[in-house]
Amino acid sequence: MAGIVRVGIIGAGRIGQVHAENLAYRIPEAEVVAIADIDERAAAACAARFGVPAATDNPHAILDNPAIDAVLICSPTETHAMLMEAAAAANKHIFCEKPIALNLAAIDHALAAVEEAGVKLQIGFNRRFDPNFRHVREMVAAGKIGEPHILRITSRDPAPPPVSYIKASGGIFLDMTIHDFDMARYLIGSEVAEVFAAGGVRVDPAIGEAGDIDTALVTLRFENGAIGAIDNCRKAVYGYDQRVEVFGADGSIAVANNTPHNAVHSDAEGVHGAKPLYFFMQRYTESFIEEMRAFIAAIVNDTPTPVTGQDGRVPVVMGLAAWKSYKENRPVPLSEIG
Amino acid sequence: MAGIVRVGIIGAGRIGQVHAENLAYRIPEAEVVAIADIDERAAAACAARFGVPAATDNPHAILDNPAIDAVLICSPTETHAMLMEAAAAANKHIFCEKPIALNLAAIDHALAAVEEAGVKLQIGFNRRFDPNFRHVREMVAAGKIGEPHILRITSRDPAPPPVSYIKASGGIFLDMTIHDFDMARYLIGSEVAEVFAAGGVRVDPAIGEAGDIDTALVTLRFENGAIGAIDNCRKAVYGYDQRVEVFGADGSIAVANNTPHNAVHSDAEGVHGAKPLYFFMQRYTESFIEEMRAFIAAIVNDTPTPVTGQDGRVPVVMGLAAWKSYKENRPVPLSEIG
Amino acid sequence: MAGIVRVGIIGAGRIGQVHAENLAYRIPEAEVVAIADIDERAAAACAARFGVPAATDNPHAILDNPAIDAVLICSPTETHAMLMEAAAAANKHIFCEKPIALNLAAIDHALAAVEEAGVKLQIGFNRRFDPNFRHVREMVAAGKIGEPHILRITSRDPAPPPVSYIKASGGIFLDMTIHDFDMARYLIGSEVAEVFAAGGVRVDPAIGEAGDIDTALVTLRFENGAIGAIDNCRKAVYGYDQRVEVFGADGSIAVANNTPHNAVHSDAEGVHGAKPLYFFMQRYTESFIEEMRAFIAAIVNDTPTPVTGQDGRVPVVMGLAAWKSYKENRPVPLSEIG
Amino acid sequence: MAGIVRVGIIGAGRIGQVHAENLAYRIPEAEVVAIADIDERAAAACAARFGVPAATDNPHAILDNPAIDAVLICSPTETHAMLMEAAAAANKHIFCEKPIALNLAAIDHALAAVEEAGVKLQIGFNRRFDPNFRHVREMVAAGKIGEPHILRITSRDPAPPPVSYIKASGGIFLDMTIHDFDMARYLIGSEVAEVFAAGGVRVDPAIGEAGDIDTALVTLRFENGAIGAIDNCRKAVYGYDQRVEVFGADGSIAVANNTPHNAVHSDAEGVHGAKPLYFFMQRYTESFIEEMRAFIAAIVNDTPTPVTGQDGRVPVVMGLAAWKSYKENRPVPLSEIG
Repeated sequence: MAGIVRVGIIGAGRIGQVHAENLAYRIPEAEVVAIADIDERAAAACAARFGVPAATDNPHAILDNPAIDAVLICSPTETHAMLMEAAAAANKHIFCEKPIALNLAAIDHALAAVEEAGVKLQIGFNRRFDPNFRHVREMVAAGKIGEPHILRITSRDPAPPPVSYIKASGGIFLDMTIHDFDMARYLIGSEVAEVFAAGGVRVDPAIGEAGDIDTALVTLRFENGAIGAIDNCRKAVYGYDQRVEVFGADGSIAVANNTPHNAVHSDAEGVHGAKPLYFFMQRYTESFIEEMRAFIAAIVNDTPTPVTGQDGRVPVVMGLAAWKSYKENRPVPLSEIG
Repeated sequence: MAGIVRVGIIGAGRIGQVHAENLAYRIPEAEVVAIADIDERAAAACAARFGVPAATDNPHAILDNPAIDAVLICSPTETHAMLMEAAAAANKHIFCEKPIALNLAAIDHALAAVEEAGVKLQIGFNRRFDPNFRHVREMVAAGKIGEPHILRITSRDPAPPPVSYIKASGGIFLDMTIHDFDMARYLIGSEVAEVFAAGGVRVDPAIGEAGDIDTALVTLRFENGAIGAIDNCRKAVYGYDQRVEVFGADGSIAVANNTPHNAVHSDAEGVHGAKPLYFFMQRYTESFIEEMRAFIAAIVNDTPTPVTGQDGRVPVVMGLAAWKSYKENRPVPLSEIG
Repeated sequence: MAGIVRVGIIGAGRIGQVHAENLAYRIPEAEVVAIADIDERAAAACAARFGVPAATDNPHAILDNPAIDAVLICSPTETHAMLMEAAAAANKHIFCEKPIALNLAAIDHALAAVEEAGVKLQIGFNRRFDPNFRHVREMVAAGKIGEPHILRITSRDPAPPPVSYIKASGGIFLDMTIHDFDMARYLIGSEVAEVFAAGGVRVDPAIGEAGDIDTALVTLRFENGAIGAIDNCRKAVYGYDQRVEVFGADGSIAVANNTPHNAVHSDAEGVHGAKPLYFFMQRYTESFIEEMRAFIAAIVNDTPTPVTGQDGRVPVVMGLAAWKSYKENRPVPLSEIG
Repeated sequence: MAGIVRVGIIGAGRIGQVHAENLAYRIPEAEVVAIADIDERAAAACAARFGVPAATDNPHAILDNPAIDAVLICSPTETHAMLMEAAAAANKHIFCEKPIALNLAAIDHALAAVEEAGVKLQIGFNRRFDPNFRHVREMVAAGKIGEPHILRITSRDPAPPPVSYIKASGGIFLDMTIHDFDMARYLIGSEVAEVFAAGGVRVDPAIGEAGDIDTALVTLRFENGAIGAIDNCRKAVYGYDQRVEVFGADGSIAVANNTPHNAVHSDAEGVHGAKPLYFFMQRYTESFIEEMRAFIAAIVNDTPTPVTGQDGRVPVVMGLAAWKSYKENRPVPLSEIG
């Protein structure tokens, strides 16, 4: 594609603003030409802040605009699949936040529409673009640790979201662990065959009353014979805990948390360092830029996107399998889910 | 008990020698008065090396010696229960290496004999006496991390033992994970209700041919609601990997590996540190001394030993449950085992 | 000041481009309206890249432009003082890269012109705005380590500049250590009374032939009684080494290097981490943004700039004292220099 | 020498007890046959504790005992040279704590006596035998960092000794820095040509009133062109701070402090680790064993000792030069001292 990629953003919430800012200031190959939000003032505020010429409360003003090359779907999850289909019908390239949908029928219908339209699709699994995790993947892919045997992922949030959010989220495995499921496939480079999920309500009884759990441990069996464990909690008082380790025949590679500074203070009580960066907006700043750069580059160069529709579908299958495993207290093969 | 505790050692192999040396040079409150080994030359060599006045190929020369207060059972596993019973009958205090036996009937029979005799019994779960793990336990017990939610144990050996050893070992869960099962109970201070074991043969096909696996991941559900994961491998090329983390409502506490030195070398390739200490003889040196000190102190002060017969029994139950879980691919409550 | 600060940049070299990019994309309170460089193509390229409407080979096109509020002086050192005077005469606020000049008479003449004009002046000691060093300063200023006793600064470049650059640079103490002299004053919050410099040519004999040295160790005596040591080298094969430690009556605070990722790779050879970020363009990215934000904020809010003309002058005095100390092999009080 | 080395210890204070224990329990090639102390009860207590058959208040009972092969001089500094001469006259091998004496004439007289007698002499610079520092030396000697350019030593005590001790100690440079002077020569493998010392009284005015200082920074110029800085303080509230770094043409090697455990506690306040081991008795435990092993091995194998009389003399020269430098505020070549 010659020239600047013209982008429309649907959804002016937190993540829509992140993408608007990154496209405006960090990615000269693209420009945001319109932003839509059901709350028109939110759209207008975002447009004003990042120099976007048009704001609207109607996503179709974006989808029907022939000057727009690509659409970012940053609206609530329940609208993702529908908007994806509409964008495909309008022949726009699509960047869609995760998850595509909470049920597979909707996902499959949307992905079929995308495939038929032949537009590009990238799913917002941003953590793949984090320098730490990317380095781990590169080391594994380059064979530096030999055949992978064991994967460990620790993924803990600093504080739970409101219970109202949790009720619509699909629950911990589809809302929170879904990122770790993606990370597991990405790091190991093999599909997961079976999951076993344990967990409970440890942080807040209200989460349990909403039908969810807040603490979990998921065992993964990969098709290539590796095994893995993901541990999650909705509340780590010391901040966002995001670590992985891949152990293999020739060694291991592990990443620690990122911190706002690396100063170490020694006093009569001990030796003290900084807590991890507080949450994903602080921790994954760079990954949001890089995923958007990759999406724009895929359009400019007409190359495949690095996170495909299938990459968006599989973690939902894993999340559904994890819920089934948790409820039935038995390992569940992904083939049971679809 | 007044005076020096007079100790007899049965088994002059590697671990018997460690205890002989520690008693001889590090624990003035005790003295080793005899050492037995089926290989009389081994007994004699050990006796000569550590100044032990008597060596024999007959354990009964120790058990029948009225001058001996306490016996260390450091012989092969299959003799532990029998010797424990004989020592109890001879009214000796007993330190017995783990595991007591590979089947529960033998364990229960031996523990009943000990109870009847009223002698002290300590099981050789030495890792509880390691400064790192002890500090973790103390922090958890003091409530410094709040209610524990998640336990993570990484326990990997530098190299597998000979297949001949593996065949008689009871397999990975009873030979290797058993230490981690003990550590899990010790750190969390709650019993495990159920285990789920995954794993496979990744290191050496000969281990699989011997009916064992060499790589494993065990999920634990504790009675207090905490969950845990233990990962094991028989071969980590970088050395003995012994780490734990306990995460709870108010924080986490984690330990890293110990190294022979802490020098860091920076060159054009990167920043390089030492590998972990090679294996348990290097890594747990101090814990072997401390466990023996604790055993002798329990005799001298007539106080309970810190690792009881029950502490020896439960990890065997867990190992048996893990094998059943692995073979049937389902979570197994410990209550199924006994 | 109401509205957007209109900035002109003089010098479109490496650092001028950094400021142009940061002003264009990261600081909405300012806009770059013109850029000048003796090489007009360089000015035009920079302007095109960052959306600057005007490019020129004549700095006076900027100084004489009444629409411009502030000038960034990013040209070669020998032009700094002259341009600073011209900008003061034109009533522009001034951001000037370090050093102001290599001789005190020129500095004093320029600072007097600035003072007379009453414009704001900020000197480009960017490291003060680095999150690591800022945190150290904040801890020291808050009394967290008590009265400071000892300062240690390690500051080593990954590779020496060309000898042609070195010849015009004023030598290691005025070109390289000058940043550390600023850091020393900033961290301790006290002036230095006396310096003692040792060093030699260890990296490249051509540096010695150019009349400079490439490796140095400077002892500082602060007026408040603290003592400090700065070590420098023009070549560290593992990359840019930028560490400080302040030790005081109640503890110490120290910072380590920043790295491109924090992955740790363990293999049969050892445990390996990333090298430090390569050089100042990678290491101090954030500090360049923050210093410019601070300069613009001082104009917008009409508050003092955080790095004053005096802050630009004193490190030159220290550099001159260090050279005298090195050449005469004796401690030199700053009062000897002026 | 065939058989067990028979050792007599003169001085049953803290360090004499350390050697007695190590010889008794850790070094089977030696046995302590007598211990002397001016306080006979101290000698008797030490003898009882470590199984030494004879205790006396008269060092000559040791020096005149033909059954004794080697003498450890662990008495106060002012007696070292005299006892060394007497031991040499009695044809005993000698291990002498540092410093040999506080003046060079006494040292030279004593060393001449040793040389004439042809007995072995080892000086108690134990830190050379610490695993961390030994590893650094081995890396430097093996050329792993290339030609050394810069040495940095941080050496801070947790708390100052009593002022009464300080008065007789020779002051900070001869009592405390002397260990670092030895370390500097050991690590770099080159003699120091010149020193420059700065410092002051920061910890306790009473130290100043006793004619000493408590905080110091010493610059070293090595004969091979390397430069170095040693920083000292008598009081670090976080414990014993013992770090070194050697930087060279091909990289650097650095060591951190040792800690009682490596557990890391994360809570809402930060990430917390253990303080360094408290003081030299905790920190250098292993080095005391290793230096004694080396002394005994030199006798058994009739090889040179690893820390010679000259190694004992040079740091005293450096300490005297540092005092002269401090008092005259100028760099002092060691050749000025002798």
